[in-house]
Amino acid sequence: MPIALHPGSFDPPTFGHLDLVTRGRKLFDTVHVVVAVNSRKSPIFSAEERVELFRRSVEWAGIDGVEFHSWDGLTVDLARKLSATVLLRGLRQSGDFEAEQSIALMNRRLAPGIETVYLASREEHLGLTSTLVRDIARLGGDVSSFVPPPVVEALRERFRRST
Amino acid sequence: MPIALHPGSFDPPTFGHLDLVTRGRKLFDTVHVVVAVNSRKSPIFSAEERVELFRRSVEWAGIDGVEFHSWDGLTVDLARKLSATVLLRGLRQSGDFEAEQSIALMNRRLAPGIETVYLASREEHLGLTSTLVRDIARLGGDVSSFVPPPVVEALRERFRRST
Amino acid sequence: MPIALHPGSFDPPTFGHLDLVTRGRKLFDTVHVVVAVNSRKSPIFSAEERVELFRRSVEWAGIDGVEFHSWDGLTVDLARKLSATVLLRGLRQSGDFEAEQSIALMNRRLAPGIETVYLASREEHLGLTSTLVRDIARLGGDVSSFVPPPVVEALRERFRRST
Amino acid sequence: MPIALHPGSFDPPTFGHLDLVTRGRKLFDTVHVVVAVNSRKSPIFSAEERVELFRRSVEWAGIDGVEFHSWDGLTVDLARKLSATVLLRGLRQSGDFEAEQSIALMNRRLAPGIETVYLASREEHLGLTSTLVRDIARLGGDVSSFVPPPVVEALRERFRRST
Amino acid sequence: MPIALHPGSFDPPTFGHLDLVTRGRKLFDTVHVVVAVNSRKSPIFSAEERVELFRRSVEWAGIDGVEFHSWDGLTVDLARKLSATVLLRGLRQSGDFEAEQSIALMNRRLAPGIETVYLASREEHLGLTSTLVRDIARLGGDVSSFVPPPVVEALRERFRRST
Amino acid sequence: MPIALHPGSFDPPTFGHLDLVTRGRKLFDTVHVVVAVNSRKSPIFSAEERVELFRRSVEWAGIDGVEFHSWDGLTVDLARKLSATVLLRGLRQSGDFEAEQSIALMNRRLAPGIETVYLASREEHLGLTSTLVRDIARLGGDVSSFVPPPVVEALRERFRRST
Repeated sequence: MPIALHPGSFDPPTFGHLDLVTRGRKLFDTVHVVVAVNSRKSPIFSAEERVELFRRSVEWAGIDGVEFHSWDGLTVDLARKLSATVLLRGLRQSGDFEAEQSIALMNRRLAPGIETVYLASREEHLGLTSTLVRDIARLGGDVSSFVPPPVVEALRERFRRST
Repeated sequence: MPIALHPGSFDPPTFGHLDLVTRGRKLFDTVHVVVAVNSRKSPIFSAEERVELFRRSVEWAGIDGVEFHSWDGLTVDLARKLSATVLLRGLRQSGDFEAEQSIALMNRRLAPGIETVYLASREEHLGLTSTLVRDIARLGGDVSSFVPPPVVEALRERFRRST
Repeated sequence: MPIALHPGSFDPPTFGHLDLVTRGRKLFDTVHVVVAVNSRKSPIFSAEERVELFRRSVEWAGIDGVEFHSWDGLTVDLARKLSATVLLRGLRQSGDFEAEQSIALMNRRLAPGIETVYLASREEHLGLTSTLVRDIARLGGDVSSFVPPPVVEALRERFRRST
Repeated sequence: MPIALHPGSFDPPTFGHLDLVTRGRKLFDTVHVVVAVNSRKSPIFSAEERVELFRRSVEWAGIDGVEFHSWDGLTVDLARKLSATVLLRGLRQSGDFEAEQSIALMNRRLAPGIETVYLASREEHLGLTSTLVRDIARLGGDVSSFVPPPVVEALRERFRRST
Repeated sequence: MPIALHPGSFDPPTFGHLDLVTRGRKLFDTVHVVVAVNSRKSPIFSAEERVELFRRSVEWAGIDGVEFHSWDGLTVDLARKLSATVLLRGLRQSGDFEAEQSIALMNRRLAPGIETVYLASREEHLGLTSTLVRDIARLGGDVSSFVPPPVVEALRERFRRST
Repeated sequence: MPIALHPGSFDPPTFGHLDLVTRGRKLFDTVHVVVAVNSRKSPIFSAEERVELFRRSVEWAGIDGVEFHSWDGLTVDLARKLSATVLLRGLRQSGDFEAEQSIALMNRRLAPGIETVYLASREEHLGLTSTLVRDIARLGGDVSSFVPPPVVEALRERFRRST
């Protein structure tokens, strides 16, 4: 089975990301979760915190065969280093597809041997984005149906601290 | 008739927002306009100014049954406080729908009894966004066909001052 | 509360349609379900059968305040006859919005006083269309999680007969 | 590696379909191409002809590990029979995604253990659909840059005969 | 100035088509309106009738520099014959763009020297399609705000006759 | 032939922009490339640098009839000054169209005599955006298949300096 790399911001990881990794593990030998350091966005959690939150969420969910990295280079360079031939991404809505299509076409130019594979979100995660989770947590809303327990706790601390 | 809450940034309110409130008033008992304080964006008008601009625009248009709030919490929490069971939103293009769908699905999880209701923009407001109005006003363009007179004046002052 | 008209093909009615009527009833005084006779499509159930299937589904679900019509004229003409000021429609995906927007804009020209109101589908009905239900039923699949019991039975009979 | 099923109408198979199978073979053990018999559309080639055209195209391209079926039942039923756990589909544009999302969500209800996996079309196949190929062939256009040689020939015969 | 070809079904021509031709004439030397004979759809007006309706609508509107053709071959073949280097098409919504993009990419392969040029519909024609006009006319609705007088009359006759 | 204005951020210009100008020159007498100074975004190159990069790219490609401007006012005001009656823009995906449609509708209100004309991107530039080019360059990737040589060099210097 091919080795897959699942790149993203994961600020924070949600049940949607966890589901994608779970499903990816049925298709691929290992799923390498890769947290982007060099994001254009200003994350609320550092890359190390995001790795740690995703790792603890995966442990909490009892998924094996997942490894974690933070990375400040090109995704395809890390893929080559890890012998991954697949980039795994989720699609929630058609707008997601357009953004993903641009990235995938650029990546194919950079690394023709690496394939981007998409899984559609489950219905129950259709509206679920890290951005909305952050907004809800910041305003004191209950995020326990959107993110795993380790993330619920981290968000609570983060926004308690910042008040 | 149900009570509706119309949340948004309204930076500034446009003829599109005014039309939505007018049409909403035919469907709902009261329309509570709720200006988001805790926006991710950096608004050009403060929440208080945006409330005031919308209020004066509604008076100018002679619409009754509209009340105004600024709010720095979850929209659904204010809806519950005001006994509103409807969140009213406009749709201009299909991309709007995707953003709205995400928010509505998250809100339903947070408050299952509150319904999000959409009205499609009138043709003449299809291209009209607060962002484009700000851009045009900043560059000295005539915004009088996009926003009500009280907003025209406020934009003129704002960008005169900032030059 | 305004009176609403919910027009459609309903070939057959699904849990998605039933949910829309249920939610519509919280917003509107009466919901008139209107089955289009003059459809461009060749329906598998006659207009009378579709009315009957929807009526029995609504009874099965215990929803009141719903009335049923088949109609071979303009939707807005029936709306006027029934004193309905609202056309109620569901939106599943952004493509739905584009089709609905065209129809709504044309209807507004024909009857400026009638408003089209949209509700977004529940997550669990996001993929659910009458077309796919017909395809699955035709191929002998189990449709009981997609349509109410009266429709399950009618589909079973229809496709048993046609084999 | 999982076994994959690639269902479609393939009326006729194009270079886009051939590319998808080629890329699918790097991810999956076997790719079962499944030609839908019971299509709503009226195909220009019979299911047997479409199987044969796809088979000869795959031979022409020198791809191994592909098997061919025509099927008039539910896709997921054949998947179970063939121990396939993956449905493989291509995405050209965002509109494709919406149609695919509906089908995938319905299939997941029918067969929760079967995963739908998407690959984005290569740039050079972005506009390429069987429908447009048929239109061009019918009007006497040169389709040799859109479909493999066995299909070029079959289209030429089909439309020579029908004139 | 380049010569443009405006291909379509025009069943019937609408104010949207008329507007496109008017605007096209400011950009291009001649606009050749090309009515597709070999459409997959079953038109309500014959190709000759559609040519005639469009011609009379253009005369009614007082637009010059427009010529009319019906054509049962590839659009690009007629373009070459007429020395046209531009295919002119309108875009109402983003879904239109996807369909147009496919066709344009295929046409570029067939005739690399011919450019497809798009104009966005005016706001007031955003919802206006020939399909909806036919539906409204068939049901006895007033189409005079959607199509020019010669088409209003032809639709009235067509659907009077067919009742 | 009309005079066209091609406004944008061009941060940096790509092969996609260069292609658009090339194709635009076959349709229009002069193409005025207009670099927006007053962008909401924080560009990596100053307006003067972007003008210079685009000019050198156009020279490198041997395209004539192109002129360059930086502008901190309304696009339509510069168009009037330059007697341009056309705004030329590219469309890669349907999401592009929605953003462009908003802008075009606002511009038409501001300057009814100026027409926005769209060309669809070539297949090979479908995924190509200045944003992705910046991201790849920042991470040390090879951008030589995305941007002309003068831009490759400028990006290399920019990100060397900033490390």
